Amino acid sequence: MRFTPTHTSGFARRGRLELPHGVVDTPAFMPVGTLGAVKTASPEELKALGAQIILGNAYHLYLRPGLEVLKAFEGLHGFMNWDRPILTDSGGFQVFSLGKLKKVSDDGAVFQSHLNGDTFEFTPELSAQIQQTIGSDIAMVFDECVALPNTREAVLRSVERSYHWGQRFLTVSRLPGQAIFGINQGGCELDLRTQSLEMTLDLKADGVAIGGLSVGEPFEHMMRVLDHLAPKLPASLPHYLMGVGTPRDILEAVNRGIDMFDCVLPTRNARNGGFFTELGLLNIRNTVFKNDRGPIEEGCECPCCRHYSRAYLRHLFNVKEILGLRLATLHNLYYYLRFMREIRAHLESNTFPDFYAKKSVALKAAYPGREEV
Amino acid sequence: MRFTPTHTSGFARRGRLELPHGVVDTPAFMPVGTLGAVKTASPEELKALGAQIILGNAYHLYLRPGLEVLKAFEGLHGFMNWDRPILTDSGGFQVFSLGKLKKVSDDGAVFQSHLNGDTFEFTPELSAQIQQTIGSDIAMVFDECVALPNTREAVLRSVERSYHWGQRFLTVSRLPGQAIFGINQGGCELDLRTQSLEMTLDLKADGVAIGGLSVGEPFEHMMRVLDHLAPKLPASLPHYLMGVGTPRDILEAVNRGIDMFDCVLPTRNARNGGFFTELGLLNIRNTVFKNDRGPIEEGCECPCCRHYSRAYLRHLFNVKEILGLRLATLHNLYYYLRFMREIRAHLESNTFPDFYAKKSVALKAAYPGREEV
Repeated sequence: MRFTPTHTSGFARRGRLELPHGVVDTPAFMPVGTLGAVKTASPEELKALGAQIILGNAYHLYLRPGLEVLKAFEGLHGFMNWDRPILTDSGGFQVFSLGKLKKVSDDGAVFQSHLNGDTFEFTPELSAQIQQTIGSDIAMVFDECVALPNTREAVLRSVERSYHWGQRFLTVSRLPGQAIFGINQGGCELDLRTQSLEMTLDLKADGVAIGGLSVGEPFEHMMRVLDHLAPKLPASLPHYLMGVGTPRDILEAVNRGIDMFDCVLPTRNARNGGFFTELGLLNIRNTVFKNDRGPIEEGCECPCCRHYSRAYLRHLFNVKEILGLRLATLHNLYYYLRFMREIRAHLESNTFPDFYAKKSVALKAAYPGREEV
Repeated sequence: MRFTPTHTSGFARRGRLELPHGVVDTPAFMPVGTLGAVKTASPEELKALGAQIILGNAYHLYLRPGLEVLKAFEGLHGFMNWDRPILTDSGGFQVFSLGKLKKVSDDGAVFQSHLNGDTFEFTPELSAQIQQTIGSDIAMVFDECVALPNTREAVLRSVERSYHWGQRFLTVSRLPGQAIFGINQGGCELDLRTQSLEMTLDLKADGVAIGGLSVGEPFEHMMRVLDHLAPKLPASLPHYLMGVGTPRDILEAVNRGIDMFDCVLPTRNARNGGFFTELGLLNIRNTVFKNDRGPIEEGCECPCCRHYSRAYLRHLFNVKEILGLRLATLHNLYYYLRFMREIRAHLESNTFPDFYAKKSVALKAAYPGREEV
């Protein structure tokens, strides 16, 4: 892996991430394809929208289709017919949130599958092996995620345990060319964030991810953590903010030095008829759109806005036609990917400060919270 | 409308149907888009598969989105962004099968909506007006459909009532260029089929449809009715067999003079993981496909078979990813549309008898019943 920041503006950077399956221009948004498919969309459609990298998930892919199938296809790329980069989440977040936890020790986490109750033990070594079998371009270390709010002691313990798990993760011989990112934790406690960052950097991983944010805490808390970390993040490494966020979150995080993002908001909102626009999330089920011949957003060049009216989209959601979900997904992913292109263009042309100043105000009005319909 | 049979082989015909929104090559299969969308597929995809005409439904579109919306878009073509021909079913079948019937008289049918219990009266005049508002290229007369098996008296009464309703339907001033097809009924009683056909032809409609078949009766009964009608169908009119059928049904019906078909089997089976192949319906959920790297059907040029393996498709259905339904729909519609192209090619090159003889045996083995997974 090679990461080259090409332009900077304050903490914000425009960069180029070279991975085994291709180049990713940063700041980048990564559509979420948890189970080997980005909800409703085909790989061809994702490419047409401009996606350069997508996410897979070690926990989910381990349960289904399982390692035997992934091995038969020499990894997820061949299995799902996606030839561009893939980043895999380690499964840590899922083990601690989806499964029924039986026991967590320094060894690893014993949990019951959320599907059929089978008992598994997830360890740093298993997570590394799964991500090798998946063949992702970027693997994430396996960390302990504690629910927030929590005691300072619990957060500190998870920071320390995650460090030791990260060390074990990195002892597993890695796939040739596969990059590994460490994960910064520490909740909203700034000193623990500092301590965790020192530990994460000590792992000598290829990138730094910031985890445990956008999990329900106020916007200002997330910004406080990012403000705290921004001057401490090594410029030579890519910075990935996990599971974030709204367009506003993304803009503010880019301004604080973040290079990579993933979030289920575009696909999840699509399922419920929520369309991202410059003026905020539009709920297409609203009766006001019944006869509306206009597109979701005037001037949008996405496959949905070019061909279909608000009235037709409302009808599709009203009668539960799957084409509605598909068109909403295409629009929302296009919105996010276009927004990243816009950010990159302003960083390249040194107009980011002006762009940021105006957009920051507009997006605060359009996306005041974690928007979901 | 202009219909020109260009080649014949026994009762089978190759023809050209010219409609306001374009030409349809017959024998033709029409994908079903009941509610203004062919399940999961976009108009662009349907065109790429080779669909020249699709179906809409007066009953469903009257309830949702309703006439006000359709008027605002000057019809269904503009509303759903489909610029090729559309045929609309009159709503007769749905009024008598989906709604809760309150009263049927010579005037029409009073029923409660299957959606919200609202009471409506469907009459031949209303059905004609709805289909005008939809702006379909071909409208179907409103007929009475009786459940089968039924008494001879009930079937006879429905034949006579449908005739009178057909007369009233045709008194409504029609949309410029819109064709209207009459519907032959009579269950499995051959003399009533004859009587109904005489009445249908007396309406001087632009085409003859055969209704009330493929509703659960044995394959041989349908063939007996088609054998009976084949020599009586005027060669100058297009012949449409409503709601039929399996690939075998279609081949046998073409051989008995049928030019047009519609059926939900390709889209309905797609929803359940059923893929049409030359060897019969393949249920992708079967464990045997777990590691299968091959396509659904070797040599198939559809967007699903070109890019995806059986193992991946099985996984998509297993984890309920909508992409699986989409790919199954594309494959199944491609299978039907390619089959029609194959039939037309053999009619053009005068090789239909040989093709029919071999294919008839193969499809009898592959599709012995009304195949559904």
